[in-house]
Amino acid sequence: MAERMRAVQYGCGPIGLSVARLAAERESFEIVGAVDIDPELVGKDLGTLAGRESEMGVAVTDDAEALFERTDPHVVFHTTLSSFRRAFDQLTDLVAAGVNVVSTCEELSFPYSREPELAAELDRLARESGVTVVGTGINPGFLMDLWPLSMTGVCQRVKSLRAVRIQDASPRRLPFQQKIGAGRTPEEFQQLIDEGTLRHVGLPESLRMIAAGLGWELDEVTETIEPVMAEQEVSSEFLTVTPGQAAGVKQVGQGMIGGQARITLEFQAYLGAPESYDAVYISGTPDLEAVIPGGVHGDIGTAAMTVNTAPRAIAAPAGLLTMKDLPVIICSP
Amino acid sequence: MAERMRAVQYGCGPIGLSVARLAAERESFEIVGAVDIDPELVGKDLGTLAGRESEMGVAVTDDAEALFERTDPHVVFHTTLSSFRRAFDQLTDLVAAGVNVVSTCEELSFPYSREPELAAELDRLARESGVTVVGTGINPGFLMDLWPLSMTGVCQRVKSLRAVRIQDASPRRLPFQQKIGAGRTPEEFQQLIDEGTLRHVGLPESLRMIAAGLGWELDEVTETIEPVMAEQEVSSEFLTVTPGQAAGVKQVGQGMIGGQARITLEFQAYLGAPESYDAVYISGTPDLEAVIPGGVHGDIGTAAMTVNTAPRAIAAPAGLLTMKDLPVIICSP
Repeated sequence: MAERMRAVQYGCGPIGLSVARLAAERESFEIVGAVDIDPELVGKDLGTLAGRESEMGVAVTDDAEALFERTDPHVVFHTTLSSFRRAFDQLTDLVAAGVNVVSTCEELSFPYSREPELAAELDRLARESGVTVVGTGINPGFLMDLWPLSMTGVCQRVKSLRAVRIQDASPRRLPFQQKIGAGRTPEEFQQLIDEGTLRHVGLPESLRMIAAGLGWELDEVTETIEPVMAEQEVSSEFLTVTPGQAAGVKQVGQGMIGGQARITLEFQAYLGAPESYDAVYISGTPDLEAVIPGGVHGDIGTAAMTVNTAPRAIAAPAGLLTMKDLPVIICSP
Repeated sequence: MAERMRAVQYGCGPIGLSVARLAAERESFEIVGAVDIDPELVGKDLGTLAGRESEMGVAVTDDAEALFERTDPHVVFHTTLSSFRRAFDQLTDLVAAGVNVVSTCEELSFPYSREPELAAELDRLARESGVTVVGTGINPGFLMDLWPLSMTGVCQRVKSLRAVRIQDASPRRLPFQQKIGAGRTPEEFQQLIDEGTLRHVGLPESLRMIAAGLGWELDEVTETIEPVMAEQEVSSEFLTVTPGQAAGVKQVGQGMIGGQARITLEFQAYLGAPESYDAVYISGTPDLEAVIPGGVHGDIGTAAMTVNTAPRAIAAPAGLLTMKDLPVIICSP
């Protein structure tokens, strides 16, 4: 049997714990450590935190350096921040420790446009250390970038491309429902937008990845965000939303060339959406439509993509890569 | 601007000509030659053969060696044979000439099970010459292997997987309609099966690629083939099929583990199919369904996949690779 991949969980919030739980179930992984700076978590067993019946024998530590020294991991699952700029020091520390990094940092999924200098610096450091850094997840990471790109492969020409993600947020976690502004008045909703806490992070990154893959130079990237207002009372396990309140959010990103929207990404997540689905629509030769009825569950999919990307990241050449640079991501045993 | 990819078309049948036509339309390619052994084709202009309004200035030659010497191509589009064994000498000649090969040879798409020795030998020769060899197309190459595998990436667990391709054959080329047995009596149909000319080639290869990707050891691979009988008269531009005749073919491949069909590939192509579509159904965590309503047109898709794979093949490490080893295939400009 091939050597098991030694993995460290870096960031023990809900996403990190679901990643660690999944990796721990896989024969091919051995979870050798967990890192978090939250004093409430330090010292606790990762298995207990992740809701497993038994302990994993892995205590959360805030001393990443000592952990890496002791365990020499192949890969770190980095699940702390959405902002590449804010996560930069963590990422460079991980790279300096000589471990491959698979991260759910949304802006890392395609960081070259927003933070070209930081991206170049991280790439340089990763090459120097001989490790790979890649940002992934279900969105960004798959549904609105890698998947649409992968569908263009059967096309002789692509004129324009649209990816749509419609999600009934009712079955999602409370933090997700709060994040999309469910139950807020229009004024509160606007305030959350202004504070920057409501936005689904990653739409411009997905747009840029698609454009780069297709070899298109965008003149402009636009992004709009607005509430989906409840038309009737809708409830989830956690919240009830009444008419006049936001049921959730609609966010649209567009990549413009010559005044035309060549790439459109449309994300809607709200309580009571009549149907959840993910879809890609390509106008080209041929026209092409691909649909995932019911859509992909965000939390399940993000943990899956993160864990499934690890063997590819470990095998890939050193540097900062994006999902379009890696071979097909497969659910591995 | 990056250097254009110099490409040679090897095999000037219908598929080869559609590949050459597409590559010639792309800025990123320069068609520097064309090879065929058919004396009817030698000396003719590739553009004329491909139905373009103007000549390409590329005459078909039967002297591949001299052509390669003269033009030093980056990549060859190899579109001659379905059988890896029969194509082997052509492929080794191409590799020896130091060119990357993108081939529509169906059995090359995953040759390790059917022809392990020949596959190992081709891999060795390709590494020796520093070139990549890969078999692709729409099916095998995408719809029943790469695409299903790519959809597993969002899954935490896969219990079983089914890919379905239902095609109304009416709009396809006459050779395709003939190949699927349309208009044949049951006896004639059986005779075509016995002669081996009717079979869609590549189902076991697709099965094996999926199993290898998922890390599954199959106990057995089964394949059935039977006619889809016409229930009423159906017509295409070329053929009329009456009740009692075959309208086309249904072919099912299964990958078995412990008596269970863990992978099922179902291919149906017949005149008058009520709906064309491609679909992937995954039973796992989560269950997942992905559908391409209308399906992908085989000839258009095969030319697209072949041309779109070229930049990946050129950039890939040397050796015999399969589609699951390459980064996402994108419609490039």
